[in-house]
Amino acid sequence: MQDAFFTSKQAAEMTGCTLRQLQYWREKGVVVPTISDTGTGRSVYYSRSEVMELAVMEYCLGVGLNFEVAAATVKGLKDEGLFLSSDEKAPQRFMLCWEREKGKLELVEFDVKKANTFLKQGQPVIPVWLDEIYQRLSLKWQQ
Amino acid sequence: MQDAFFTSKQAAEMTGCTLRQLQYWREKGVVVPTISDTGTGRSVYYSRSEVMELAVMEYCLGVGLNFEVAAATVKGLKDEGLFLSSDEKAPQRFMLCWEREKGKLELVEFDVKKANTFLKQGQPVIPVWLDEIYQRLSLKWQQ
Repeated sequence: MQDAFFTSKQAAEMTGCTLRQLQYWREKGVVVPTISDTGTGRSVYYSRSEVMELAVMEYCLGVGLNFEVAAATVKGLKDEGLFLSSDEKAPQRFMLCWEREKGKLELVEFDVKKANTFLKQGQPVIPVWLDEIYQRLSLKWQQ
Repeated sequence: MQDAFFTSKQAAEMTGCTLRQLQYWREKGVVVPTISDTGTGRSVYYSRSEVMELAVMEYCLGVGLNFEVAAATVKGLKDEGLFLSSDEKAPQRFMLCWEREKGKLELVEFDVKKANTFLKQGQPVIPVWLDEIYQRLSLKWQQ
């Protein structure tokens, strides 16, 4: 059970985030570690699903999206319970599409035909493939 | 000749930017009006091509990209002379693609096949279609 939790430093190393980012996202309520003993100020532990949330934040920011979009993406996936899901059939591939009517990016399941239709109309498509994002974590994950 | 220049207020209204954004981008050297008589502090005029630059900034930020990517996109188009071009055959449609090797978004000419290949690999594609972006300006443009 214990090895399913990671210190801030481990979580930062695994995901390529900085400790400062982790702290900022804790303060903003974007990724909040389950175990956070504020008594010592150092006992912050991230669960596996929270490390996944960090990885998605890092991915979104890394491809040039702003903080609000990145945080909304993590929230959207979290609300669907997708970080906690152990169901192997749960969808893994999503995309952010520009919904002209709503005037914002919407997170939907990845569909290459639908993506292509958006592109042909000159509308952005940003894939958010959890399987790929997690795969980059997997090596350090085993430690 | 005179009607080819616009005050900050006009430029902001035409593009949907705020005056504060215009000021920030002037300070950062992203979109710097040609005529800027600092003597009075109020005589800031944007040429047509600079209004186009503002419109591209607004588009990029509007679809969720961060400031650095938006500014780099405007700079890339500016370096190619695409805002000043009166050549009707000059390319109008571009896209930001995620270049995995370089680890950053690259601005290239829009190509739907190439875009599709990126998407199928789970890599973001953000169309930057100048003709569409300018079209949204056109109504106020005539004034």
